[in-house]
Amino acid sequence: MKPGRAILVGAGPGAADLLTLRAARALAEADLVLYDALVAPEVLDLAERAHCFYVGKRAGRHSLAQSTIHALMIRAARAGKTVVRLKCGDPFVLGRGGEEVLALEAAGVEVEVVPGVTSAVAGPADAGIPVTHRGLAPGFLVLSAAPSEHHRRVLAGLEPGSVTVVLLMALGARAEIAEFLLEKGWPRSLPASIVMDATLPSAFTWVGVLEDLGRAAVRSDDGGRGLVVIGPVVALAHAVRQKEAPWQMHRAR
Amino acid sequence: MKPGRAILVGAGPGAADLLTLRAARALAEADLVLYDALVAPEVLDLAERAHCFYVGKRAGRHSLAQSTIHALMIRAARAGKTVVRLKCGDPFVLGRGGEEVLALEAAGVEVEVVPGVTSAVAGPADAGIPVTHRGLAPGFLVLSAAPSEHHRRVLAGLEPGSVTVVLLMALGARAEIAEFLLEKGWPRSLPASIVMDATLPSAFTWVGVLEDLGRAAVRSDDGGRGLVVIGPVVALAHAVRQKEAPWQMHRAR
Repeated sequence: MKPGRAILVGAGPGAADLLTLRAARALAEADLVLYDALVAPEVLDLAERAHCFYVGKRAGRHSLAQSTIHALMIRAARAGKTVVRLKCGDPFVLGRGGEEVLALEAAGVEVEVVPGVTSAVAGPADAGIPVTHRGLAPGFLVLSAAPSEHHRRVLAGLEPGSVTVVLLMALGARAEIAEFLLEKGWPRSLPASIVMDATLPSAFTWVGVLEDLGRAAVRSDDGGRGLVVIGPVVALAHAVRQKEAPWQMHRAR
Repeated sequence: MKPGRAILVGAGPGAADLLTLRAARALAEADLVLYDALVAPEVLDLAERAHCFYVGKRAGRHSLAQSTIHALMIRAARAGKTVVRLKCGDPFVLGRGGEEVLALEAAGVEVEVVPGVTSAVAGPADAGIPVTHRGLAPGFLVLSAAPSEHHRRVLAGLEPGSVTVVLLMALGARAEIAEFLLEKGWPRSLPASIVMDATLPSAFTWVGVLEDLGRAAVRSDDGGRGLVVIGPVVALAHAVRQKEAPWQMHRAR
């Protein structure tokens, strides 16, 4: 029997055509697709000959345990199947892709990773916000917004506004994080944004300042698609681009 | 005359099939393509009816001034053309995409941005390094490696090894940055990696520790494709995955 294999595939930030050509080919070759929440139906359509199973998580509820997902992949690959594990964004950006690779390799299954367009970059871009910009941000920091002690230590050391901060899965924790940053001396007037459903027809962007981030009114029933962007680059968002003086445009260097 | 427009397109990290479906369509519709160094020839082949011009930079030398690139795009769009500005990786990750958007909008040209797979994530992934990993890195920081005062301030505040640090265009500056981090108390034994030509047949990965990063022997004649990864996740790289005890695997949380 021909040995099977597993392919971890990034489905991109939302819109189906932000899939890569390599991802589309992997789906076309798949016998089995295990997909997460928030994967576009049109993407699944590309898996013409595969059985597609939903194994995703939403708003903190796991519909399948991670160990069960590993077991499903290993069993199918050992049976000679080509298994595609389809994940939102990029498999290695807060998607537990690394854990899946280690589990598959430990089981002797051949694994390939197909990177995807990460919503950490494409989400802000969809709102007109470049995560880096000469004179405003020489780089960016991506964190999940789970308000752990580790996260606090990372953010505590950061010079306020020195890099763009992108928080994924951040809607629920935004008030707590904003309060923490304000306590650390981050400017109340630092531009901040909430980007929801980026690259989809339902996309929505709130643009304001750090002080108001916690109480910005957005629908909060679905934390999956929401991300938070904090930093001077937010002043370049579509919504505020017509203003005369973007926030401290020449401050950072 | 139908108004023209400009599309900033991310070409992905290197391999031609890591282009998105949307990017491929933009290229197929283009009348004019202005492309950077390091864009795969197969990607340009997708621009079947376009004139393609190289406007890239290599190793710090600009072959065309940024203002000239702006002027070329504006002139072509005003003449009714669809202009694709094709950039390595993602247009908004250290690619001056934000500046180009502002210049085009100021000139009244309609602009669209097609995000791409960034080498900041796909480069490490190609070497088997997930930029985030449960228990090792809750996030990642991306910086260009230009050793400016601003960069130093960003890195100076960061708790050593608390997030994965990815430095793009970093080959030339790696010794200086490693020295700076060691002075700030980062562990000499912190895993570090140099990833070159990620996703291409010529891909090469060096894996070691921070102490040796500066003197690692890699060809340094071409800084464009080289990136540096620093952090515990580097212990997951293909090259070291067989070792028994990855560096402080359970340290971060």
